[in-house]
Amino acid sequence: MNEQTPFRPKARLPRGFRDRDEAELAAERRMLDTIRRVYSSYGFQALETSSLEYADALGKFLPDSDRPNEGVFSLKDDDGQWVSLRYDLTAPLARYVAENFQTLPKPFRRYQMGTVWRNEKPGPGRYREFTQFDADTVGTASPAADAELLMMCADTLEALGLRRGDYFVKLSSRKLLDAVMDSIGVEAGKRSTVLRAIDKLDRLGLEGVRALLGAGRKDESGDFTKGAGLSDAGIETLLQFLTIRERGENFYEAGLNLIGEELWNKGAGALVEISNFCKACGYQSDRILIDPSIVRGLDYYTGAVYEAQLTFPVTNDSGELVVFGSVGGGGRYDDLIARFTGQTVPASGFSIGVSRLLSALKARAGAESFAMEPLVVVLALGNVQSSFRMAGELRGAGIRAETYVGTKRFGDQLKYADRRAPAIGIFELSARGEVTLKDLALGAELAKSIESRAAWVADRPAQQAVPRADLVSTIRAMLAARGKG
Amino acid sequence: MNEQTPFRPKARLPRGFRDRDEAELAAERRMLDTIRRVYSSYGFQALETSSLEYADALGKFLPDSDRPNEGVFSLKDDDGQWVSLRYDLTAPLARYVAENFQTLPKPFRRYQMGTVWRNEKPGPGRYREFTQFDADTVGTASPAADAELLMMCADTLEALGLRRGDYFVKLSSRKLLDAVMDSIGVEAGKRSTVLRAIDKLDRLGLEGVRALLGAGRKDESGDFTKGAGLSDAGIETLLQFLTIRERGENFYEAGLNLIGEELWNKGAGALVEISNFCKACGYQSDRILIDPSIVRGLDYYTGAVYEAQLTFPVTNDSGELVVFGSVGGGGRYDDLIARFTGQTVPASGFSIGVSRLLSALKARAGAESFAMEPLVVVLALGNVQSSFRMAGELRGAGIRAETYVGTKRFGDQLKYADRRAPAIGIFELSARGEVTLKDLALGAELAKSIESRAAWVADRPAQQAVPRADLVSTIRAMLAARGKG
Repeated sequence: MNEQTPFRPKARLPRGFRDRDEAELAAERRMLDTIRRVYSSYGFQALETSSLEYADALGKFLPDSDRPNEGVFSLKDDDGQWVSLRYDLTAPLARYVAENFQTLPKPFRRYQMGTVWRNEKPGPGRYREFTQFDADTVGTASPAADAELLMMCADTLEALGLRRGDYFVKLSSRKLLDAVMDSIGVEAGKRSTVLRAIDKLDRLGLEGVRALLGAGRKDESGDFTKGAGLSDAGIETLLQFLTIRERGENFYEAGLNLIGEELWNKGAGALVEISNFCKACGYQSDRILIDPSIVRGLDYYTGAVYEAQLTFPVTNDSGELVVFGSVGGGGRYDDLIARFTGQTVPASGFSIGVSRLLSALKARAGAESFAMEPLVVVLALGNVQSSFRMAGELRGAGIRAETYVGTKRFGDQLKYADRRAPAIGIFELSARGEVTLKDLALGAELAKSIESRAAWVADRPAQQAVPRADLVSTIRAMLAARGKG
Repeated sequence: MNEQTPFRPKARLPRGFRDRDEAELAAERRMLDTIRRVYSSYGFQALETSSLEYADALGKFLPDSDRPNEGVFSLKDDDGQWVSLRYDLTAPLARYVAENFQTLPKPFRRYQMGTVWRNEKPGPGRYREFTQFDADTVGTASPAADAELLMMCADTLEALGLRRGDYFVKLSSRKLLDAVMDSIGVEAGKRSTVLRAIDKLDRLGLEGVRALLGAGRKDESGDFTKGAGLSDAGIETLLQFLTIRERGENFYEAGLNLIGEELWNKGAGALVEISNFCKACGYQSDRILIDPSIVRGLDYYTGAVYEAQLTFPVTNDSGELVVFGSVGGGGRYDDLIARFTGQTVPASGFSIGVSRLLSALKARAGAESFAMEPLVVVLALGNVQSSFRMAGELRGAGIRAETYVGTKRFGDQLKYADRRAPAIGIFELSARGEVTLKDLALGAELAKSIESRAAWVADRPAQQAVPRADLVSTIRAMLAARGKG
């Protein structure tokens, strides 16, 4: 006998975490299967690395380097070393390649789907645990490798049902951005501040970025972020560069004009090669195009950067119609493996934000494209074991069928069936040797209005009694009729 | 310019963690898809809970309660509360049900596949991160719910290709074990020590358990574990009970004999009901049977406990032929949700150890049943873009095809192709307007012996040159011929 009041923990999740239900998981699984099929068809190999890594092996490359010790979930292992939950799938890949370099095919092309964790402030639609789907090519500096990732991304989005014009796979280059910074004389120590400012273009708009490139910016809460302190002319050149596409100008002409031939040749070479490669393979600018506004937040990119953007409008949380925007991105990170080995291993990768892409597909295709497999519920009014045998027979015929395993109370069973709509309900009425079938999709309000079994078995729409022997064939016919409805 | 020697982390994983490659992931995915299909066909709903939970919500139920503060990976959240990586999928389900009770169908039947983490000493084949596949029925005390889990488990193992006799789904009961302990007068305070001792029967054998039930046991390293201090007669009764099946005796007669009618009726009722339910549904003792040696380690079980055991022999790490043993288990845990709510919600579940089951299936079915989809490698001796177009054409025809995206050096390409065997290699020789095809499965030692392109293109087995237009049809014929080989 416990004399103390027992401790009752509150049933709740830490902030920024969530549970996900059947409908969402089924839709996500279908999407992931499609991505996997396309990536595998390109010959990329599956890999799964562990969730926890030594903190030093992951390194610190998260965009928010204003808070250098934050962003990851870390704990001390029993050998006294810090381990962290991975914050992306790229840093673990670099560790894996450095560890297994000798035995890997070169280039090594892998895909990985997995959970990543960020110890950041959660917000609407922004979780601290989410899924990424990455493809990377390690061990080659060839523009063909970048081009392949971009083309594969376009193929994937179309395999998922998006139409041409619904999306663009965009690319730019850190090297070209460096050349632009060269042209306006940004010191080395300021470049990552400039990068971080530019990366906020989407969120803060041109004026916000202008402030961050100059003296600094005060946000709505009154917090002040110190700026990069560039000159007005320098800022103007940078913003001109970022908005070339927005102004509808020709990238090559406008870019060359802005920074001069020497810097242009130094910065734009690989980018133009990648773009030309795609075009030669039939991927024109209606699918893949250069856009200098692409920067990407992560610190480890060294060359080309990519982003997949969806162009169609969706309604946001505030009820406004907005363009969907980015569903993934990536780039070339030629120095990440050298962190371990000291030797440069060129590498390039693309990461899809799984839950963002899923919301986009739902918005585009309509929820009905993600409908669940139909279900039959066998209620247990008579003999429970006979209900089990009916469900087993239906499953044997390839039909998803469950048996009610709770109490024998009719009201409870109807409530249950109601929750399981749009299932088809089966009620055994053994006295007549018949089974009663009812399409619960047509009677979703069932349980609220009906109190007694007698009232329920009275003639109702979408209900029929058939001989036990006709069970499977009748259910088949009902499911087929639904499809046509 | 950095004047310090740059820090070079060592590329390594924390102990007890691992990376998994394409072949294993593909085999696992196929297995998981089959389990999911069976569970879903029974109408169980998918659920995914978060990886991190508040530590108090998970509770401490791991078998190794000798070290009550160990076993889980925990860290302090930014609000100062402890969060832990889940150590199983049952404790999070209890939290989920307590949190969402009002909106769930009752009973609530869900399956969840997910990673779990244990901060325990790793060993051969024993990792600190692994996957479980659980099915649970919450909200009913009906033996039908337990029986359903057991029958579904049997169906799943057969859907995975195991034959009847390859496996047994066994059940026993904590209540019956309690009745046995009543019969020999074990005090309440000692019962969990007795449980933990009995649970080690597999590992320590009868004599080891006898010592742990009595004065105590010194292990090979000399460490002494204090025993439960039962009387010799009491120990004998317990061991007699555990070995009823081993001795080939009738469970009902032997059990009744051992503890007398009153205790038997108190302890065995639900267990016998579950077993009879299975039999009435056609699941006889060649699939599902009572075995009192089943205990299960977790502390939260309150009634029936289950275990799926594979009966066929496999070779263990030391080269010995052993029976494979357990691939999963579970039981009834009627008090776990009451931890939160104070109200008993009866619940029952079954958990499959995914990687153990996968090794068992591989051992049984042979590695060839888990072969990868065939692959075609287009090497890039000529124009890389033309190689891309060939690969694209093959993919369009449903054939997995990759392009080599590395250097143009012939030796590198052959080495690559060698690593990708058993692929079919395509080499474009544009001068003759033909492509050369080679089944690399028949030339795995390729790269070692051949230095020059000239030597390679000389006539070799499994190699043919065909017009570019015949590419897809020839590859199809080669893949078909392989299937027959």
